[in-house]
Amino acid sequence: MFKENDFEKIVLGRQSVRHFDPSRKISHEELLQMLNEAVQAPSACNLQSWKFVVVDSPEGREKLHGYFMPFNYPQVDTASAILLVFGNTKSWKKYEDLWNGMLKAGKVSQEARDAAVGTFLPLYKNADQQMLLADALVDAALVSMQFMLVARAHGYDTNAMAGYDSAKAAAAFDLDPTQFVPVMAIAIGKGDPSETIPDTTRYRAEELTDFA
Amino acid sequence: MFKENDFEKIVLGRQSVRHFDPSRKISHEELLQMLNEAVQAPSACNLQSWKFVVVDSPEGREKLHGYFMPFNYPQVDTASAILLVFGNTKSWKKYEDLWNGMLKAGKVSQEARDAAVGTFLPLYKNADQQMLLADALVDAALVSMQFMLVARAHGYDTNAMAGYDSAKAAAAFDLDPTQFVPVMAIAIGKGDPSETIPDTTRYRAEELTDFA
Repeated sequence: MFKENDFEKIVLGRQSVRHFDPSRKISHEELLQMLNEAVQAPSACNLQSWKFVVVDSPEGREKLHGYFMPFNYPQVDTASAILLVFGNTKSWKKYEDLWNGMLKAGKVSQEARDAAVGTFLPLYKNADQQMLLADALVDAALVSMQFMLVARAHGYDTNAMAGYDSAKAAAAFDLDPTQFVPVMAIAIGKGDPSETIPDTTRYRAEELTDFA
Repeated sequence: MFKENDFEKIVLGRQSVRHFDPSRKISHEELLQMLNEAVQAPSACNLQSWKFVVVDSPEGREKLHGYFMPFNYPQVDTASAILLVFGNTKSWKKYEDLWNGMLKAGKVSQEARDAAVGTFLPLYKNADQQMLLADALVDAALVSMQFMLVARAHGYDTNAMAGYDSAKAAAAFDLDPTQFVPVMAIAIGKGDPSETIPDTTRYRAEELTDFA
């Protein structure tokens, strides 16, 4: 099914690529397929608080120039597509329908449906904006990480970008900024093999971990 | 290197497991190895705004009972370990040292070091708490997703948990709550094969994606 199925190569070989082959196109069908694989990621209460905009037209890239840092123009201009990942702070509004659908399809028990809708939905209905925002950021980051790995299984490279003007991100693509919060943008394409990729260092887990 | 190296099985076969084999131990060495693989995940400006507490003692589990939802006690009580993932809102304080170290080791050019320290560090120094919090949540969620997949490559199952009393999470493990924000907890262990895992549904990418 996957072009590359070697977990070690995919995960430990991933690097942030900034220069792509601009002649390489990725079909919308394949982009949707990668997204359908990425959304198998978990989310808080299965709320799936994510939303996607795929930019691959010249007009769409021009919009990105309006609020991205010039530092990131090489990716915006050469990637096959730029995936904009947003968190959805109102995902809970569809939650009851989702669980009723799973119950009807025989995928979950009445008990599981009642626990989800009875226990968790009220928490979201009464949540403050800060909690909804945090949940949306975390869900959308989980799906973003899985997308970057799935992209490599499809034979592509990626670069995760932040640092754009986040106040402009949703409105630039006609999304309601009170509902959708920008989480990151992911350039995807075939890396230009002549690019020298910096070998960035990670802090060792030994320095970052307490046992209790 | 990995016990299971089939990307498709690892990623598309992942499910949230709630009942683990309580007799199964995972060594601290292996937990640190999994974390060192997980931290190969990308982060905003390579700031790596993450911090870990691994709970596997009876005393540690007792602390979790103090602020987790009873709904999640089965995982807390039966998992080999519970990884608490925190975001670090002050990761930028080590940023100059990190890039100077990479320069000294010949891993990055003077130009790349100067761009990182000259362009990005001031953004963090002047950032408001909201931006630092969002960055920490996103970085820590990226490493969490990669950890859940790496765990499967090591032959384990996981369950990501939220919904605990986040105001208590840092202090319960002697971390400074003004620096460390709880992002999620991940139970890890060998799933109990007798557990029936609900087959939860995902929204289709076609419903969630705009092209631009």
